Amino acid sequence: MNRDQALQLVKPQLTEHRYLHTIGVMETAIKLADRYGADVKKAELAAIFHDYAKFRPKDEMKQIIVEQRMPSILLEYNSELWHAPVGAFLVEKEAGITDPVVLDAIRYHTSGRIGMTLLDKIVYLADYIEPGRHFPGVDQVRAIAEEDLDNALIQSMKNTIQFLLKKNQPVFPDTFNAYNSIVKNSGG
Amino acid sequence: MNRDQALQLVKPQLTEHRYLHTIGVMETAIKLADRYGADVKKAELAAIFHDYAKFRPKDEMKQIIVEQRMPSILLEYNSELWHAPVGAFLVEKEAGITDPVVLDAIRYHTSGRIGMTLLDKIVYLADYIEPGRHFPGVDQVRAIAEEDLDNALIQSMKNTIQFLLKKNQPVFPDTFNAYNSIVKNSGG
Repeated sequence: MNRDQALQLVKPQLTEHRYLHTIGVMETAIKLADRYGADVKKAELAAIFHDYAKFRPKDEMKQIIVEQRMPSILLEYNSELWHAPVGAFLVEKEAGITDPVVLDAIRYHTSGRIGMTLLDKIVYLADYIEPGRHFPGVDQVRAIAEEDLDNALIQSMKNTIQFLLKKNQPVFPDTFNAYNSIVKNSGG
Repeated sequence: MNRDQALQLVKPQLTEHRYLHTIGVMETAIKLADRYGADVKKAELAAIFHDYAKFRPKDEMKQIIVEQRMPSILLEYNSELWHAPVGAFLVEKEAGITDPVVLDAIRYHTSGRIGMTLLDKIVYLADYIEPGRHFPGVDQVRAIAEEDLDNALIQSMKNTIQFLLKKNQPVFPDTFNAYNSIVKNSGG
């Protein structure tokens, strides 16, 4: 599937704003893949489809989580997390993407996970720093991403966890497992 | 076992500084138990023994963790965490304390855990706010502890997690799980 075919499948699933975000993630993921030696075509494809399920109704996402026997703990946490694993499922079913590395990068782009692949990291980070993102700390992560992929991920995960802590919100276990996994392996 | 007998068993295990800390934890735990309706004698006993294993050699603690089949993940994290579960074991073996509620409060006084008991919470918090503690944020937690036990725990756990994040240190999963468990149950 080439870029235009992929974008054509994604566009009707998204708002205009979210489509522009997707373009930003795609461009950023390509740059990161190029810089850090990942497969550029896979990064492009995963980035284009990463928010495929973003606007599915909550009930539909919930049903898919249950029927597909995804981890039921998802349902105990913020529904903002659901579109990533549900997206991986729907992208395979509706768009015919079968590459497990691409599907995993979509599946874990919001939460992270223990032992993230290079493509997981690139899509996670591209989603965080694409040019349309404006929030405290994003410029710092953009700067670190020029130098060190793992350190940029650590900083983005720290920001996310601290944001949740400040609001007395629970932190999805995959997110802190991802943080622990990456700080342990980076020796940072 | 009365207070004097317990203190006599603990004193030779500790430095003078840590013994004074223990007295502070004991007095604070008694006040918290009284305020929040816990068993005051159990709170006193758990507080007196909470740091029983604090100065055991790392090798001895490691051996006990392995031989007693404690969670091996402990060995992947800071050894500062080890004295709590090792202490629970040694307090039973060497001081003859058998009350599982007291032993659990000792076992989880550093990490916390999912579904902390009232006594777990009191010993954890007393250890954090006893009068000898001086660090940023402790007065805020002391003030909250006058009003709401769970909110004081949430704030102390947030401080601990943020402290670790700032140093790019991993966070022991029980600590994150304790935080998640308590924010979910407090509705705070």
